[in-house]
Amino acid sequence: MEAVNELEPEPELELEQVLAANQRFYAAFGALSVEQMSTVWLHEDWVQCVHPGWQLLQGWDEVRASWAKIFTGTQRVKLEIGNVSAHLEGEVAWVACTEDVLSSFERGFDQAQLQATNIFVRRGDSWWMVAHHASPLPPAAEPTLQ
Amino acid sequence: MEAVNELEPEPELELEQVLAANQRFYAAFGALSVEQMSTVWLHEDWVQCVHPGWQLLQGWDEVRASWAKIFTGTQRVKLEIGNVSAHLEGEVAWVACTEDVLSSFERGFDQAQLQATNIFVRRGDSWWMVAHHASPLPPAAEPTLQ
Repeated sequence: MEAVNELEPEPELELEQVLAANQRFYAAFGALSVEQMSTVWLHEDWVQCVHPGWQLLQGWDEVRASWAKIFTGTQRVKLEIGNVSAHLEGEVAWVACTEDVLSSFERGFDQAQLQATNIFVRRGDSWWMVAHHASPLPPAAEPTLQ
Repeated sequence: MEAVNELEPEPELELEQVLAANQRFYAAFGALSVEQMSTVWLHEDWVQCVHPGWQLLQGWDEVRASWAKIFTGTQRVKLEIGNVSAHLEGEVAWVACTEDVLSSFERGFDQAQLQATNIFVRRGDSWWMVAHHASPLPPAAEPTLQ
């Protein structure tokens, strides 16, 4: 195994920037803002997104349209992000985290516990989201009766 | 945008090798073989796996144990992989594909349509799986009545 990270001057700083990009993604989600999403994602035809229970979306146009559709139907969203872990590999990094999503609509609420895999690439000094895959977690374990 | 792939001598050959690694992963799955899985995954404590409806697994020990558990309970599995797309970014690549999984157990069958995101890294001349995230796709669209 080669120590790939030795090529990077400051991998810890890089990881901080990746985690900051991940936070910007969830800030855009929480703000229901397509404009903010647009500053987080790389605008390429090969970026990809899997929303829970959706088909794969490919390319920024499809990804952008999906967020616009989700945000249009949502009045408010409250997000809690947990169990964040990140791995850096040169110019690419990916983050695993849980999403606790409480959404309110005109006619009610929806709550979802999701597991996400988010991939980022570096261009110059900036990290950009290039893939998001979120899917339902199993129900929380019942407390044991002891 | 910098042309990252120009750093690679033969990106098309690299992509072929990534797709071959992806095929070896599904061959191991189809063969219900932990030994084959072991030759596909990088044995590091940061690799990660999300099976449909499972919590995130981290590290090769957990990932290996999960495949062993799945394979032990399964008599046969028939896999059809579709809509494969891959993207290469230096020493990292990821593959999106659909999985049509027909599993037979002692007491019945299960069929699942899944969307997968598979991440690979290069070490020397070889590509290794470092992340797998699979989750349920929506039911196939009803044929239109026209």
